Amino acid sequence: MNDATIDLLGVLAYGELTAFFKLSSDAELAPTLSAKTALARIAADELVHHEQIRAHLGAAGVDADAAMQPFVSAFEEFHERTAPSTWFEGLVKAYVGDGFAADFYHKVAELTDAETQAVVVRAVDSQAREDFLVNSIKAGIAADPSLSHRLALWARRIMGEALSQGHRVAATRPALGELILNSSDSDQASITRLTTIFGDLTSGHMERMARLGLDA
Amino acid sequence: MNDATIDLLGVLAYGELTAFFKLSSDAELAPTLSAKTALARIAADELVHHEQIRAHLGAAGVDADAAMQPFVSAFEEFHERTAPSTWFEGLVKAYVGDGFAADFYHKVAELTDAETQAVVVRAVDSQAREDFLVNSIKAGIAADPSLSHRLALWARRIMGEALSQGHRVAATRPALGELILNSSDSDQASITRLTTIFGDLTSGHMERMARLGLDA
Repeated sequence: MNDATIDLLGVLAYGELTAFFKLSSDAELAPTLSAKTALARIAADELVHHEQIRAHLGAAGVDADAAMQPFVSAFEEFHERTAPSTWFEGLVKAYVGDGFAADFYHKVAELTDAETQAVVVRAVDSQAREDFLVNSIKAGIAADPSLSHRLALWARRIMGEALSQGHRVAATRPALGELILNSSDSDQASITRLTTIFGDLTSGHMERMARLGLDA
Repeated sequence: MNDATIDLLGVLAYGELTAFFKLSSDAELAPTLSAKTALARIAADELVHHEQIRAHLGAAGVDADAAMQPFVSAFEEFHERTAPSTWFEGLVKAYVGDGFAADFYHKVAELTDAETQAVVVRAVDSQAREDFLVNSIKAGIAADPSLSHRLALWARRIMGEALSQGHRVAATRPALGELILNSSDSDQASITRLTTIFGDLTSGHMERMARLGLDA
């Protein structure tokens, strides 16, 4: 397994593990026991994904803990700066943050081997989770339209922090950066590729906001 | 489904749900990523058990949220009074608290129908969890023998709080109390039965402490 693939799986594995912990703790803000249980289930699914990636790394003889270590501080910082103070902030964070991360992992996974790609796709795609989040957030806004403006601002903050940590990770992990940029590209081709990736990530975010009926 | 069975499943379902949340949050105290992941898995298994009980209640046409509601405050109080401040306190709490609860649920489940009994046993028995907890605690004490005294005191506190909340629950839920005491019994038979139950719960606790090599 090459360094870039190990980095990709390491960042994803640690992302899923922190998602488990953050979603579990955000679930405590739930207004009802059913909502609490539903978010707890989403959290537990993230742990299952983490375990799948850990197993995939292990099968390739790679120590998952060592693979995750370089990404610990970026995630800690992201979560520290985006601690939700209400149930709906928690849901928007999960929807916007995980959605952005999923788009990013998809893009990078396309550049790796077929098996890794399958593991990544299985770890990040969940229609059930997305539907629960979208429906819950929309119901909340319908019940209290004043939430709309506040959550739109909050979503922008999540997106900003995600981009900023993503940038930091790319800058400190050359193998990952090279995988994305492809070292045989000319400078012009690299810029075009980066522009395309950022453009795609941004439109993914805008589509998610549109599904919520919020301004991006 | 009779009131006593609903109470038993309600208290167990809420116990498993809070165990999920508390273990997830205790896992953040883990000294290594592997230990963190291992406790996260134990937490996620508690959520699976919660979901199994919820499904069993649902199949009988019982609203799980309503069944859990009477037990919310007892668990909140228990966890408030027993918040671990170190990784090993968290492990001892999980081992002693869940072990005590498992013994209690087993005893009460024997008095219900076969299907309920099977659901309860599946929810509370986990050799893998117990082995992980015992091995981790023993390794911790071996590395730092001064832990031994502190953890023995801590285990006693967990046991005391569990007994006190258990007593409170039994006193406020007559159906559950009657199931345990059996209304056709004479006063003398009731006292004998209670003494037996408490004796069994206490010896279960002492066996668990012996497995750790700690004084009960």
